[in-house]
Amino acid sequence: MKLLTLRTPAGTRAVRQDGATLTEIDGYATVGDLLKNPGWKDVAAAATGATHAYDGAELAAVVPAPGKIICVGHNYRNHIQEMGREIPAYPTLFAKYAESLIGPHDDLALPQESDAVDWEAELAVIIGKPGRRIAVADAACHIAGYAVLNDVSMRDYQFRTIQWLQGKTWEKSTPFGPALVTPDEFAAGPLMTSAVDGETMQQTPTGDLVFTPEFLVSYISTIITLNPGDVIATGTPGGVGHARDPKVYLQEGQVLTTTIEGLGQLNNRVVKEA
Amino acid sequence: MKLLTLRTPAGTRAVRQDGATLTEIDGYATVGDLLKNPGWKDVAAAATGATHAYDGAELAAVVPAPGKIICVGHNYRNHIQEMGREIPAYPTLFAKYAESLIGPHDDLALPQESDAVDWEAELAVIIGKPGRRIAVADAACHIAGYAVLNDVSMRDYQFRTIQWLQGKTWEKSTPFGPALVTPDEFAAGPLMTSAVDGETMQQTPTGDLVFTPEFLVSYISTIITLNPGDVIATGTPGGVGHARDPKVYLQEGQVLTTTIEGLGQLNNRVVKEA
Repeated sequence: MKLLTLRTPAGTRAVRQDGATLTEIDGYATVGDLLKNPGWKDVAAAATGATHAYDGAELAAVVPAPGKIICVGHNYRNHIQEMGREIPAYPTLFAKYAESLIGPHDDLALPQESDAVDWEAELAVIIGKPGRRIAVADAACHIAGYAVLNDVSMRDYQFRTIQWLQGKTWEKSTPFGPALVTPDEFAAGPLMTSAVDGETMQQTPTGDLVFTPEFLVSYISTIITLNPGDVIATGTPGGVGHARDPKVYLQEGQVLTTTIEGLGQLNNRVVKEA
Repeated sequence: MKLLTLRTPAGTRAVRQDGATLTEIDGYATVGDLLKNPGWKDVAAAATGATHAYDGAELAAVVPAPGKIICVGHNYRNHIQEMGREIPAYPTLFAKYAESLIGPHDDLALPQESDAVDWEAELAVIIGKPGRRIAVADAACHIAGYAVLNDVSMRDYQFRTIQWLQGKTWEKSTPFGPALVTPDEFAAGPLMTSAVDGETMQQTPTGDLVFTPEFLVSYISTIITLNPGDVIATGTPGGVGHARDPKVYLQEGQVLTTTIEGLGQLNNRVVKEA
């Protein structure tokens, strides 16, 4: 099943996608709201609300306001190698705030303050059931589904200090969507690609993760309760602009494309803020 | 004016404190909800709801579920020195999630997984008006008030990787309150103290901050919109247990007391999780 958050003139609506058709799930403004209902899967499957064409639909971030966005660094073997690091014993965790999220086709805000805006294609895990100290063997039951996310990073701000947050959470900089795809239709493995104006920049199977989605759910929930709608961005593979020689960053007018086979594609034009 | 979030049998209530009396601000479950009303100050001042005695009142975290908790590291000259660092050019920012917050007299959860739980007394700034790219000169208008926070840190987890988040956001580990005190009654300057079982561990004037509340509001809002109820934890001074020789950490049954003159006191018993 594929679930999306659709923008309509009356506000956003959680919708189910069946091929070219989107069906409203009445009573739920966003996929995040829907996931708070423990019976979300049945509710979504049974929905018979107003329909819309997928083509031309205006989509919001699939979960527009997660309670938590937990990001993972150093989680693809090839990115760890290009950054000159060892395979880690523990996942590196950092945060991003909801105000950074944008929809799958929204403009990506290039802030006037940064000259070093870089891409980081990522597989996102969306939580569907609350839990604390979840065993790895039970983690799959807590995963509502998967989506595509680009952890666009302002490298100058990221490396101003030893903590990355200030380079990771710029307003309207993180494309997220297009859909939540449930685990019966997707598992980590398929190829993930990021491209700038059609030129491939990153291309790695999502199966190359050092720490799997299930391990991350277990590890993070040791520390803090994971709640429905929470997002884990599982890290990016090699090919980021900052690791190139010379370094390459996003420029005004370029289109950043982020794709995971089986999950869909994000297409975001880079637009300089006034 | 002092605003608090009171627990009642019917749920939490935003209340105004006048001496020994708490008055409910009808229609607002928490101080966070209240701050979303742009007229919050007048609403709170005019409130004439049910009253409660302050003595014995059960208090929640003053803002129980902030949209963002942005923490600052390396912001007191004496703590920077004890950690062996230079005075920084930029604030070090990291995050904490709302699930970590507890009330001013709640038990502080000592997790079975960590043997290195440490204190960090902090002055917290609470946002009262949304804004992006706020000038330092305008920042005061965006500050609803101040409170006391203890950024209790699991040092073993904090230093497992180069990003601190996983040591900073353990469930029910961050006392926050007791009240939001408005800026007409408080400004950074007065003495902040943390004590364990009555023994003073940290004691520094909040005026020793390298980056002031107004500077932090301006700096953070360059990156992302600050919204009502958002919290900035402005950093901790010298005297943390991890910097002592030998290192000292919180133990089962101890009481952690965190005080800022003019803002009030947090008293939290350390209780090992089952």
